[in-house]
Amino acid sequence: MYNLLKGKRGLIFGALNEQSIAWKVAERAAEEGAELVLTNTAMAARMGGTAELAEKLGSIFIPADATSIEDLENLIDKTVEQFGGKIDFILHSIGMSPNVRKGRKYDDLDYGFLQKTLDISAISFHKVMQVARKKDAIADGGSIVALSYIAAQRTLYGYNDMADAKALLESIARSFGYILGREKGIRVNTVSQSPTPTTAGSGVMGLDSLMDFAERMSPCGNASALDCADYVITLFSDLTRKVTMQNLFHDGGFSSMGMSRRAMKLYSQGLSDMLAAEEANLEFKDVSKSLKK
Amino acid sequence: MYNLLKGKRGLIFGALNEQSIAWKVAERAAEEGAELVLTNTAMAARMGGTAELAEKLGSIFIPADATSIEDLENLIDKTVEQFGGKIDFILHSIGMSPNVRKGRKYDDLDYGFLQKTLDISAISFHKVMQVARKKDAIADGGSIVALSYIAAQRTLYGYNDMADAKALLESIARSFGYILGREKGIRVNTVSQSPTPTTAGSGVMGLDSLMDFAERMSPCGNASALDCADYVITLFSDLTRKVTMQNLFHDGGFSSMGMSRRAMKLYSQGLSDMLAAEEANLEFKDVSKSLKK
Amino acid sequence: MYNLLKGKRGLIFGALNEQSIAWKVAERAAEEGAELVLTNTAMAARMGGTAELAEKLGSIFIPADATSIEDLENLIDKTVEQFGGKIDFILHSIGMSPNVRKGRKYDDLDYGFLQKTLDISAISFHKVMQVARKKDAIADGGSIVALSYIAAQRTLYGYNDMADAKALLESIARSFGYILGREKGIRVNTVSQSPTPTTAGSGVMGLDSLMDFAERMSPCGNASALDCADYVITLFSDLTRKVTMQNLFHDGGFSSMGMSRRAMKLYSQGLSDMLAAEEANLEFKDVSKSLKK
Amino acid sequence: MYNLLKGKRGLIFGALNEQSIAWKVAERAAEEGAELVLTNTAMAARMGGTAELAEKLGSIFIPADATSIEDLENLIDKTVEQFGGKIDFILHSIGMSPNVRKGRKYDDLDYGFLQKTLDISAISFHKVMQVARKKDAIADGGSIVALSYIAAQRTLYGYNDMADAKALLESIARSFGYILGREKGIRVNTVSQSPTPTTAGSGVMGLDSLMDFAERMSPCGNASALDCADYVITLFSDLTRKVTMQNLFHDGGFSSMGMSRRAMKLYSQGLSDMLAAEEANLEFKDVSKSLKK
Repeated sequence: MYNLLKGKRGLIFGALNEQSIAWKVAERAAEEGAELVLTNTAMAARMGGTAELAEKLGSIFIPADATSIEDLENLIDKTVEQFGGKIDFILHSIGMSPNVRKGRKYDDLDYGFLQKTLDISAISFHKVMQVARKKDAIADGGSIVALSYIAAQRTLYGYNDMADAKALLESIARSFGYILGREKGIRVNTVSQSPTPTTAGSGVMGLDSLMDFAERMSPCGNASALDCADYVITLFSDLTRKVTMQNLFHDGGFSSMGMSRRAMKLYSQGLSDMLAAEEANLEFKDVSKSLKK
Repeated sequence: MYNLLKGKRGLIFGALNEQSIAWKVAERAAEEGAELVLTNTAMAARMGGTAELAEKLGSIFIPADATSIEDLENLIDKTVEQFGGKIDFILHSIGMSPNVRKGRKYDDLDYGFLQKTLDISAISFHKVMQVARKKDAIADGGSIVALSYIAAQRTLYGYNDMADAKALLESIARSFGYILGREKGIRVNTVSQSPTPTTAGSGVMGLDSLMDFAERMSPCGNASALDCADYVITLFSDLTRKVTMQNLFHDGGFSSMGMSRRAMKLYSQGLSDMLAAEEANLEFKDVSKSLKK
Repeated sequence: MYNLLKGKRGLIFGALNEQSIAWKVAERAAEEGAELVLTNTAMAARMGGTAELAEKLGSIFIPADATSIEDLENLIDKTVEQFGGKIDFILHSIGMSPNVRKGRKYDDLDYGFLQKTLDISAISFHKVMQVARKKDAIADGGSIVALSYIAAQRTLYGYNDMADAKALLESIARSFGYILGREKGIRVNTVSQSPTPTTAGSGVMGLDSLMDFAERMSPCGNASALDCADYVITLFSDLTRKVTMQNLFHDGGFSSMGMSRRAMKLYSQGLSDMLAAEEANLEFKDVSKSLKK
Repeated sequence: MYNLLKGKRGLIFGALNEQSIAWKVAERAAEEGAELVLTNTAMAARMGGTAELAEKLGSIFIPADATSIEDLENLIDKTVEQFGGKIDFILHSIGMSPNVRKGRKYDDLDYGFLQKTLDISAISFHKVMQVARKKDAIADGGSIVALSYIAAQRTLYGYNDMADAKALLESIARSFGYILGREKGIRVNTVSQSPTPTTAGSGVMGLDSLMDFAERMSPCGNASALDCADYVITLFSDLTRKVTMQNLFHDGGFSSMGMSRRAMKLYSQGLSDMLAAEEANLEFKDVSKSLKK
């Protein structure tokens, strides 16, 4: 719509399906004039529609496991070849916790699973940057963004070891941002997004209630995947060249709220119910799991 | 109980009545062996029992308006005279918003009132330190604490211009902490306390629901005035001489929580009620104002 | 260049001269298609070229003292009249400390001056929003930005009471952002900019050395006034509608740095000189004041 | 000296030699009346004097590799057996990066080494808590502390992947603190300490210059290992039972400083030298590596 990314070339990890933030970023980046390469694991690509999206956007799909150095080397080589030049921007939108998937609680983690959570969700970000830097594949003044969540700063029950993975991810952004910035003016940031009903997000316990709470807490409401794509576009553009090593909240104001009027209204109702149940000597049921919007 | 403040002499602002945090600090400081001077405005002293507490603790009461340089000069002079030496620690527990009292909302502030809110709740802290420093009245390695609230970082509806006053207070702690630290190793910190049912706190809209929410969000529960006093004692002691220019959360973990299981349980119940009311086409009442625990 | 602000109408405070960040924002906003009204105090306007800039950009200049409710009411009325509609974005770039100007140190503040520092540099931001909101003059989904500095979080010697003013400013952004967000989806943010050699900035003691230090600490280097303008444009655009109540560092990474290689190189040299001087029993001079780049 | 830990029983990881913070904590905890168990890897124990310290303090030494679940299970069992009851406090002071040791830079990490860095320096903290919790070995209202560093928030050149490990460590403290807090009122915090010339710290590049810079930046000066021990004692005591899930800076004010007068004095001298060298067309040498205090 604005040609904000005209002439720019970008590599996007994690566009699984239409719900994915990375999917929306790819669509918006293409609209803004960027040339793209999309990547995902071979298995994810089969389950989702990454290759179809690539075709639709006139770009190509290159399968890669972001935890594999070999795959990443192949990916970066082929991407530079496809572009006939360096990469201007990279989106990292990858996260998965085997502990969450297998129902292991945070006080009963499987440490092999934890290692995988960290490798897939955080260390892969380091690997992408290390491989790309060694191949001198990122253009001067380029921009790299990874998606994060406020669990990196504040504990949310049920988010489990993904919270630790996000904290590690944000630290890697700072640490590598220092190196890429001083060398080539390349920015590295994380965007801390509202809870979003993506395939990845939907594994989180009680997401419905949490999203409603976040919606009522956030003065501007939850940010959608499309909102996020719009924001990420500005970070890939030339208008934000001095923003680096930051964790940027894109959450309708949630992160700066202690309590909103409209969230407290519902909480007070629940409290009132519980006090009434106690007075009547009734059991107060937990509806948080059964709740469907 | 531990003689942590044996031989130390402290000046305490804001001990109004038994609910006051400053009251508890005074009692605990005396127990820990400190010699004290208590101060408050003449009017507050009449309403509360500051003078009686002073007598009970074997200390003296000196009235002072903490926004008046003249009063503060007199206070510091008399305190040093009483102690026969310099002051080892100071507690600033002062806050008041005429806008809150008069029911002026944050989008309809009276700017004369705002000036008073800031003067009473924040600038008075600067005045205390500036006057005491000019008179060289604070002992080397001394410790100064002011009480704050998380509203300085995150917006809570109804907390109004007190949020801005607390942000200013915390900034003053840092700014003056630099000067007092490099000159004499004097520490300056703020303690960001759980919502506490003091006379000052009870003016805040919906405090009951908010306190319940904070209680259920905080893994260790809300901190009481007495808990706060215990913590402040450690900050006045010689065991914390390298902690300065910090805002220290004393809140049972609230500040590091995004969402707890037990708070979400109540929120979900309220949400469930609202959805049921909507389905039945009924009005969903706001119980947050009427709620009494 | 991108038509990012096409059809949008903005009000800009504080464009004094070509060094001003607000000046650059006005120029860039006009380039991006916005219609503007510029404002400044009558005296500042005479000293600088606000009116000339307004003319050059095809906009108008309306004098106003941002601490005067009467002036602000007149300003908002005339702005809406000029636009024939509501205001889409506002830039607040106002800061001044009589204590700094008159050489009063932070441990010897004049409290009348402090009140003015806060009124001019922070409370004026509240006044602008309160007046504009009462007149329902801000468009749905609008965007409001104020300029801040990292002194709000970390003490820099010589920055004096401006640090406290910036902390207050950032708190006001959060507090009012909650109200404007929930009512109309209006965003309120502060941009924490690198030290910038503007007329306002040049009053700060030792700015040359500080700017050099910041330059060497920041991986992407200091952000210029023009860089800042570019960034602010993205915040005024429709691409950032879920970013609110944030303090956004625009500083080449400075805020996330503990120590860089190239800053440490110079520091070590100074340390080496001092140790050599000590060994030779010579006086170690302070060059930080005399230094001219 | 105060009997602050009278009747309490604690488990201390990482007391290698007299320079170690954990060593000082053990000594101070014993002075304050605590009964202790010391632990370290078998190899570290041979190199240092952990067993001798244990003997001196009338406590016992139990070797354990904190990354081994089996070792930790044995350690916790034997500790509880030794105490004849539950553990009141735990200190985690463990950190090591094979990447730093082997001279691998942050843009050339060995990922096997990185996994070890994270396992030893951060995940071991989770393992200790998970094992102790499963065995119900921590007393109600207990206190757990791990040592961290500001590199978790701000990048310092040369600190390498230890920065990421510390960020992960602090996140684990929050995540597990939620669980242990709500279950048993057990606190979990990290102390972010000044750079300290321990055996672990001395591996960091340019530590001398960095420590000098931190000393001059911090209004109260760098905190020593003994200062840190004093502070940790307060966190183990019953006076801080509502402080949890916090990262507590114990650094003389460093974390809240942007620039101090005395650090800028040296920096300006180095800058002046460099400008003089440039004018004379001389090479400006890097003294930061050779510098010895």
